[in-house]
Amino acid sequence: MVRNFQIQINISLKKGVADPQGATIKHALESLGYPGVEKVRMGKYLQMEMQAEDPRQVEKQLKDMCQKLLVNPVIEEYTYQIRMS
Amino acid sequence: MVRNFQIQINISLKKGVADPQGATIKHALESLGYPGVEKVRMGKYLQMEMQAEDPRQVEKQLKDMCQKLLVNPVIEEYTYQIRMS
Repeated sequence: MVRNFQIQINISLKKGVADPQGATIKHALESLGYPGVEKVRMGKYLQMEMQAEDPRQVEKQLKDMCQKLLVNPVIEEYTYQIRMS
Repeated sequence: MVRNFQIQINISLKKGVADPQGATIKHALESLGYPGVEKVRMGKYLQMEMQAEDPRQVEKQLKDMCQKLLVNPVIEEYTYQIRMS
């Protein structure tokens, strides 16, 4: 039976990789007068729908897609969530 | 006592808003031979660190920052998580 899977992937820059976009947002927040903001890092958020029979197959394919297309493993890292719907 | 808060914000395009970046990724995955990918939507992922005394103050400020700077409420929606560390 083919099932529907909802996937969320959060991609962020690894520690130590410069993040000018995050730094710009931090400065903007400071100049708007928001106190206490210590650190801002900007990343990507992907939502996906996949159809498959086996949840393990979905996870395997997802990791493969991340490593081959969606994520640059030199500078980025990722986390994911898979939900059956 | 001032505490440290870890914040994650996921920003995504509202339903019905065109997402050419997501469409491009979907086509790329298809042409790489990945089956079953039904839908891809691209969004933004923000990680933040904030210092404050009161968790309610953090949430209030976070919503305010999202509405005034981080999110475009006409085309985007957001979810967030706050963790004390």
